[in-house]
Amino acid sequence: HPAPATAPKAYHPSTSSVFTPLDTFLPRHIGPRSNDVEEMLSVLGYKSMDDFVDDTIPRGVRVQELTDTDDGGLRPLSELELRRRAEQVAAMNKEMKSYIGMGYHNAIVPPIIQRNVLENPAWYTAYTPYSPEQSQGRLESLINFQTIAISLTGLPIANASLLDESTACAEAMAMCLAAVPKAKFTKGKKVFLVSPSVAPQTMAVLETRASGFGIELKIAQSNQGFKEELEQLGEDKLMGVLVQYPDVNGEVGEWASTASKVKELGGKMVVATDLLALTMLTPPGEWGADIVCGNSQRFGVPMGYGGPHAAFFACTDELKRKMPGRLVGLSKDARGGPAYRLALQTREQHIRREKATSNVCTAQALLANMAAMYAVYHGPEGLRRIAGKVHSLTRVLAQSLTSLGFTITNKTFFDTLTIDVSTAGVSAQQVHATSVQAGINFRRIDETTIGVTLDESVGPLDLTDIVNVFYRVTKKADITPDVLDKLSQEMSLSAESVTETIGSGGRTSEFLKQSVFNKHHSETDMLRYMMSLQEKDYSLVHGMIPLGSCTMKLNSTSSMVPLSWKEFGGLHPFAPVDQAKGYTVMFEELERDLSLATGYDATSIQPNSGASGEFAGLKVIQAYHASRNQGHRDVCLIPLSAHGTNPASAAMVGYKVIPIKALTDGSLDLADLKDKAEKHKDNLAAFMVTYPSTFGVFEEGIEEACQIVHDNGGQVYVDGANCNSLIGLTSLGRVGGDVSHTNLHKTFSIPHGGGGPGVGPISCKAHLAPFLPGHPLITTGGEKAITAVSAAPWGSASINTISWAYIKMLGGSGLTNVSKIALLNANYIAERLRPYYNIRFKNKNGRVAHECLIDLAEFEKSAGLKVSDFSKRLQDYSFHPPTAQWPISTCWLIEPTESEPKHELDRFIDALISIRKEVDEVIAGEQPKDDNVFKNAPHPLAVLTDAEWTRPYSREKAVFPVSGLKRNKFWPSVSRVDDAAGDLNLICECGTVEEYA
Amino acid sequence: HPAPATAPKAYHPSTSSVFTPLDTFLPRHIGPRSNDVEEMLSVLGYKSMDDFVDDTIPRGVRVQELTDTDDGGLRPLSELELRRRAEQVAAMNKEMKSYIGMGYHNAIVPPIIQRNVLENPAWYTAYTPYSPEQSQGRLESLINFQTIAISLTGLPIANASLLDESTACAEAMAMCLAAVPKAKFTKGKKVFLVSPSVAPQTMAVLETRASGFGIELKIAQSNQGFKEELEQLGEDKLMGVLVQYPDVNGEVGEWASTASKVKELGGKMVVATDLLALTMLTPPGEWGADIVCGNSQRFGVPMGYGGPHAAFFACTDELKRKMPGRLVGLSKDARGGPAYRLALQTREQHIRREKATSNVCTAQALLANMAAMYAVYHGPEGLRRIAGKVHSLTRVLAQSLTSLGFTITNKTFFDTLTIDVSTAGVSAQQVHATSVQAGINFRRIDETTIGVTLDESVGPLDLTDIVNVFYRVTKKADITPDVLDKLSQEMSLSAESVTETIGSGGRTSEFLKQSVFNKHHSETDMLRYMMSLQEKDYSLVHGMIPLGSCTMKLNSTSSMVPLSWKEFGGLHPFAPVDQAKGYTVMFEELERDLSLATGYDATSIQPNSGASGEFAGLKVIQAYHASRNQGHRDVCLIPLSAHGTNPASAAMVGYKVIPIKALTDGSLDLADLKDKAEKHKDNLAAFMVTYPSTFGVFEEGIEEACQIVHDNGGQVYVDGANCNSLIGLTSLGRVGGDVSHTNLHKTFSIPHGGGGPGVGPISCKAHLAPFLPGHPLITTGGEKAITAVSAAPWGSASINTISWAYIKMLGGSGLTNVSKIALLNANYIAERLRPYYNIRFKNKNGRVAHECLIDLAEFEKSAGLKVSDFSKRLQDYSFHPPTAQWPISTCWLIEPTESEPKHELDRFIDALISIRKEVDEVIAGEQPKDDNVFKNAPHPLAVLTDAEWTRPYSREKAVFPVSGLKRNKFWPSVSRVDDAAGDLNLICECGTVEEYA
Ligand SMILES: Cc1ncc(COP(=O)(O)O)c(C=O)c1O
Ligand SMILES: Cc1ncc(COP(=O)(O)O)c(C=O)c1O
Ligand SMILES: O=C([O-])O
Repeated sequence: HPAPATAPKAYHPSTSSVFTPLDTFLPRHIGPRSNDVEEMLSVLGYKSMDDFVDDTIPRGVRVQELTDTDDGGLRPLSELELRRRAEQVAAMNKEMKSYIGMGYHNAIVPPIIQRNVLENPAWYTAYTPYSPEQSQGRLESLINFQTIAISLTGLPIANASLLDESTACAEAMAMCLAAVPKAKFTKGKKVFLVSPSVAPQTMAVLETRASGFGIELKIAQSNQGFKEELEQLGEDKLMGVLVQYPDVNGEVGEWASTASKVKELGGKMVVATDLLALTMLTPPGEWGADIVCGNSQRFGVPMGYGGPHAAFFACTDELKRKMPGRLVGLSKDARGGPAYRLALQTREQHIRREKATSNVCTAQALLANMAAMYAVYHGPEGLRRIAGKVHSLTRVLAQSLTSLGFTITNKTFFDTLTIDVSTAGVSAQQVHATSVQAGINFRRIDETTIGVTLDESVGPLDLTDIVNVFYRVTKKADITPDVLDKLSQEMSLSAESVTETIGSGGRTSEFLKQSVFNKHHSETDMLRYMMSLQEKDYSLVHGMIPLGSCTMKLNSTSSMVPLSWKEFGGLHPFAPVDQAKGYTVMFEELERDLSLATGYDATSIQPNSGASGEFAGLKVIQAYHASRNQGHRDVCLIPLSAHGTNPASAAMVGYKVIPIKALTDGSLDLADLKDKAEKHKDNLAAFMVTYPSTFGVFEEGIEEACQIVHDNGGQVYVDGANCNSLIGLTSLGRVGGDVSHTNLHKTFSIPHGGGGPGVGPISCKAHLAPFLPGHPLITTGGEKAITAVSAAPWGSASINTISWAYIKMLGGSGLTNVSKIALLNANYIAERLRPYYNIRFKNKNGRVAHECLIDLAEFEKSAGLKVSDFSKRLQDYSFHPPTAQWPISTCWLIEPTESEPKHELDRFIDALISIRKEVDEVIAGEQPKDDNVFKNAPHPLAVLTDAEWTRPYSREKAVFPVSGLKRNKFWPSVSRVDDAAGDLNLICECGTVEEYA
Repeated sequence: HPAPATAPKAYHPSTSSVFTPLDTFLPRHIGPRSNDVEEMLSVLGYKSMDDFVDDTIPRGVRVQELTDTDDGGLRPLSELELRRRAEQVAAMNKEMKSYIGMGYHNAIVPPIIQRNVLENPAWYTAYTPYSPEQSQGRLESLINFQTIAISLTGLPIANASLLDESTACAEAMAMCLAAVPKAKFTKGKKVFLVSPSVAPQTMAVLETRASGFGIELKIAQSNQGFKEELEQLGEDKLMGVLVQYPDVNGEVGEWASTASKVKELGGKMVVATDLLALTMLTPPGEWGADIVCGNSQRFGVPMGYGGPHAAFFACTDELKRKMPGRLVGLSKDARGGPAYRLALQTREQHIRREKATSNVCTAQALLANMAAMYAVYHGPEGLRRIAGKVHSLTRVLAQSLTSLGFTITNKTFFDTLTIDVSTAGVSAQQVHATSVQAGINFRRIDETTIGVTLDESVGPLDLTDIVNVFYRVTKKADITPDVLDKLSQEMSLSAESVTETIGSGGRTSEFLKQSVFNKHHSETDMLRYMMSLQEKDYSLVHGMIPLGSCTMKLNSTSSMVPLSWKEFGGLHPFAPVDQAKGYTVMFEELERDLSLATGYDATSIQPNSGASGEFAGLKVIQAYHASRNQGHRDVCLIPLSAHGTNPASAAMVGYKVIPIKALTDGSLDLADLKDKAEKHKDNLAAFMVTYPSTFGVFEEGIEEACQIVHDNGGQVYVDGANCNSLIGLTSLGRVGGDVSHTNLHKTFSIPHGGGGPGVGPISCKAHLAPFLPGHPLITTGGEKAITAVSAAPWGSASINTISWAYIKMLGGSGLTNVSKIALLNANYIAERLRPYYNIRFKNKNGRVAHECLIDLAEFEKSAGLKVSDFSKRLQDYSFHPPTAQWPISTCWLIEPTESEPKHELDRFIDALISIRKEVDEVIAGEQPKDDNVFKNAPHPLAVLTDAEWTRPYSREKAVFPVSGLKRNKFWPSVSRVDDAAGDLNLICECGTVEEYA
């Protein structure tokens, strides 16, 4: 690697010349070619792009377009320049080996998974599997993930991932609250008691979350006295407890009697744990835990300086309807065959809104799939062997250190030793200095204590390097690996050995006996398994995913490449920051660029989803009010059309949600807003508004609305999840926001991954900047930072490289052009469909924003067809259906994004026109209302081999309604999935060996 | 990167311990699990693997099994250890920027192509598209490649790639010979006149090839006097000419009148050229060339230290039936739709044998696909802009150097300058030293001359670095990029500018007007195009490819990863060897390991295919005989069952091929061999024999056969292309071979890439080692080296990393185990099919080797079914058919390899049993002989939507003959392809815009 430099060595010609790079990104990112753009503008009746934009975004709120200059703008890099710059930045990160533990471990990513899942657009460009007939592959993989959690924790229900271990613990805390009858708290206090040996980042996130729920968070004095403290607390205060197993210091506690006590006192028991350890430890589900969660990162996902990885979350059957996040369940399809789909959706924020158990929307699907594949590849025996080896090596380490005079303070352990170094006559500082010298990071606990956590990457040389740090610091000569090997032989250790040091009795129950975990252990087999799933899933590699409010745009390969490098993947989030200079530079640049693009002064990338950003932003507002002695403000105004996460987030910070109506033209009811703002002016905390609106228009009254709120003492939270059409043209700050989140997994090109990962950074005006979130272990955020909202200081750190690269390659004018084409593509669709469908909302010039609502209500009356019937039928045309049900239950919300080429837009329009004709056939009675191409849709391949065909339309019409499909078509793999049946009889783990045999 | 070290830092426990790595490769590579192995052995009636192996490979020829020890064995590395070792080796290569040219250029590989083609198992694990209904995707891509050659060269026919530019020129020379009537050469001499400014590596390869054909190779005195020399030569000697355009020194010659003269004299004109240059130059097809060929590497394929890349090859319509290599043509399928397939197969060596125009078999399909995708992505305008920029930058360079007093000796140029440095008062040595100091390689031509070739990777900083070498060497201060930018503006240059310096008049004809090159220019579109092709192709990701003699085994991700690194990809083959220490180490280790595994003393990896290895091996034998004054020996004995490349290669070295018969049990007819060996003992040059035999058995008489040959003065060439079942058990040297090639793309796990790349190293005994091939530019091979057989000193250098990794990860016992399981898998299939089919050959214990022949002859009589009908029907069962037609026309040759899991073998066996029952239905008359599941096979999806179904079997039976297929099936994308129709009316380029509009 070249020597790192802060600024890239570069020359940029001032005008176009032979030095202008040819591999510019903008034309690769944008679908329509320049002749297409002209044609589309003329369909819309415009001579120029400027005229079109003027009619679409009110001039009044426009800003100076972003430029490509260095001062105040963003200079674009070509794809090759970006590559070189990324290499330069990567080289600034220092490759050390970290044995810090605390929930993050070196992992061996099986190359086959790295290449065929993480780096495969067929996996990473998929959407959340809300269209189950086109998503059976990743639904199966997610149910494998759930099965892992179920099988290893010993609880019967698990979800398809949460954002990280700490937020998972916070979700668990909220779930306890929801599960425990309010009446119990006769003293008014609802106490959540936490073991003092829970990871500090989890403590911090719990603290951030507790107050909004009115929960009193209490850290127990000690683990020894935990039960006594519980008793003192008493039944009328105890809501729940959290312990960690093994704990952050490595101790494998004995918590069974505590669990009984918790139950006796009417509380719920939450356990944070480690999947690898559970292959050897008695599972918490077997000793009384109600909820068990943790991080699955060490199942083959890179640390990535803190994320992304998938948290797992399991609970008792009793609690299942309060489960946060997405849950995959088995159901059947219209032909009676097995079919997976997302279960119990009525729990989720998009349905329950402020009453939801959680605001979680985007989670960590891609990483859950990686972890699931890791378990499929290794199988139970492979996992047990890895765990056994890690544990045995830890025993060798313990023995070596003890013989040097160090004291291991934890009595039991799996992979972590807490070491009192003073007994060997040295200080933690000396050990630290020696270890860093050797390229190693340990956990520095206090002046005399060091923590070391081993993992599957530790080989003989690594362990010798670790041990030699302690030899050197005690002034002894280095040893060689054979010394340790000999020691291990003397101790009769192997990867298979079960051992007494593990504490709490070893695991006796079997795990992962299901066929899928016992079949694909050769690489050929594994590859075919992954491919067989991949082929069942529709993703951007097949065609448009016109999901309104989701911005399914190109996720370019160039922007995806750097995160695979070990310089980004290998860093522990709590490593000393001076080892992460590359990350620091990248974060600084990204935060600056995001602030510029959104019209704000400061940005924090800690939130690892849009919903997490909302919560963080509201917390920042809350802290701001408190700092001005306005801490009592607790009213939050939210339009009825807001995304479900908005009210759910507001509820989580303890705000009272008051809805604001919309006018019939879809715009905000300013009068209603004014009314309510004034009515609550003494308690008005915030107004949450989405811009452009969730109805797909640029709200004309947005400035006035913000003014009203400000005039009444409130702060404005602009939900910028959907700001793809405004970057460079106007800005969230410009229209009046105080703070916003943007979804980097939408506007800024991080792929959706089939339901995560995401990054939901918040950007804010200067007065809020001091409150941006901090972290207990690593300094970040403002001077008056709120406590952490995520486990890691920079959230899903590694994938920020994607948005960083995206912005760098587009530059200022590129970003602006992207917005324009996003607007053009949407308006082209709306215009061409206008003769056939009811475009629900347009602005006064007849323009929509970057998405449009098509109202299908009339067809329910005329033809008995619901939105879902249209969505299923669209699958037969080889499309993923648009967003449905929300923001209006009778509508489709369609967003093409700038990356769709014109011919794909035309294919979509032609499909919709053809569908409109099919509606007419139903209306005309040519197809019965209960037996037609809609009601029987989608038509998977299997229907074609039916010997008898009794439908009132031909086989050909069923599956090839337009002729282009014969050349190329994505086939749904099952018939219409029956949601009700699955919810009634919830099955969320995969079958056992016997069932498959 | 860590500091390079020659030996890896490592610790290997001597016995199994906690330090034994868990990520061992063997269990990932092998399909059957240990319980499967037991079950399979018991089906075969064995208690132990040893008993089975003893019955399969004669004890007499066995060797000590390969061990895992360091002395004499091969120590296995775990997957992670291999990764680290590969990083270490990679770091030993020095990253310089090479502007050496001579047919190799820095290329920008579009990331989307790198990830989705080069690194995608769906592309790289495919076989040569001989099963067209399952290969329409890559057939389309290869026809794109052909179209590029056709469109840019201006000739009407092009093939689907050759091995490299130099061998392509040699193939052209042979083609000229075949095309020119023998009667013409009244003086007996057949002269091929070559321009002196053809690349030296091409000269060398021509020299190697000429003698076998009886061609006199003549280097012209000069290009100026070329026409005069032609005339002197006269009609009765001139066979053909070769010129290079632009030539190796950069000159863009004017060759039109030479071409007329060649035609007048009855010869053929061959032109070596450059695709990028042809976007600006008048195409040779327009000024009289008969054959035009070259390297397509700069179309987005890494240099890889010499390979692999795809050579292109175009010719006039008159010559098409003499075309070497594979040719894709458009035909139609049974339903009348368009369908691609390999055309004019009767030209190929597998049909024509010693009468074939060429021995080429494996070519460079994967790299041809990459180059084709590059052109699809950039389109004609993009390519022209890249060329324009390269040319303009070259002009800026020329101007800068001239102003410093250097003299550009070529009057015209595209991208290459030949610089007389003496006029600026410096020596080439000084320039060289200064450039290397700056991290730059130029071409060193002689004491006073330097060559510089620019390419698309050259940016402002690169050009400035180049120019500054000349500033520094003339003791002037460095300049900055803006100086050159200003200069270019003064010269009014841009990527679009057409320029007078180009020579020969610029190109006036349009190119690449076809739709496919003008449509997919955004990344989303490109991705979908690639995926739409991928989905039409069967590959190892779908299931077994049981191709006998092809060894379609796992190509593991870990072994595929390193070749993507720039440390391996970025090196120019003619860079100073001290910059390629990593490669040197890797080659040394690989050659040593291959020698060990094959039982020989020395190895050369220069041959870049099996056929190329055969030719090289025979050349080595020829040189050996010559060195002992036995140069007259020219008889080569070859069994009738030999692979077509054997006789074709023998013919190419000028040997007379005399066939040897087989006995009815499939073994060599030793009496016939003895007879013929003795009869020809004065002229016996060689015996070529395949071991294990092409009939899939271990020849019992192999040792005796070798002895007979040796006794009669001949050398033994053992074709080791299929030696997957013997490594570690016996060896090619042990059974009596003097020299062998092995196919690294079979036994040693390089993926087939859909028809290449490959590596066909030759290994030999000590007496032949001095003759191993050399190279004119870089020292390699033996002390008495034959001239080069490939353009690059180490052939397809970069992909040797794959086999290197494969061997390293398996180690000695792993390689041996692989052989055993390969034998077991094949014997399991043979045993289970025995009740249903005629297994043609077995050894005396009833065992086959790693493949088996199933004779289907009886069914032609009883049911009117040919082998091809069986092959087409097998597609309906979601399999790729086995090798057919060869070695016996009525047989299938089936090879499962060790990587297939038992359940996949069972699926295959079940399919064959089911098919056997279907045969009975035809015999019983339940299905007519001319309308049955065979004759109508394969059944693509399209047949299912036929409204009327008139076949004598159900839709379900047609496509789901066994039930598992409903869960998972690969669908052929067209009906049976009509070969005859396509050959009759050869179309080998894709349609024009108009046809698609
Ligand atoms: C308008 C809006 N706000 C917030 C969110 C929540 O974002 P996330 O799914 O990343 O939590 C979404 C997600 O679709 C959204 O569309
Ligand atoms: C026995 C045998 N020899 C030689 C070859 C030629 O190898 P290649 O295709 O690499 O030229 C093959 C290829 O299939 C083969 O099977
Ligand atoms: O729910 C959504 O991800 O929009």
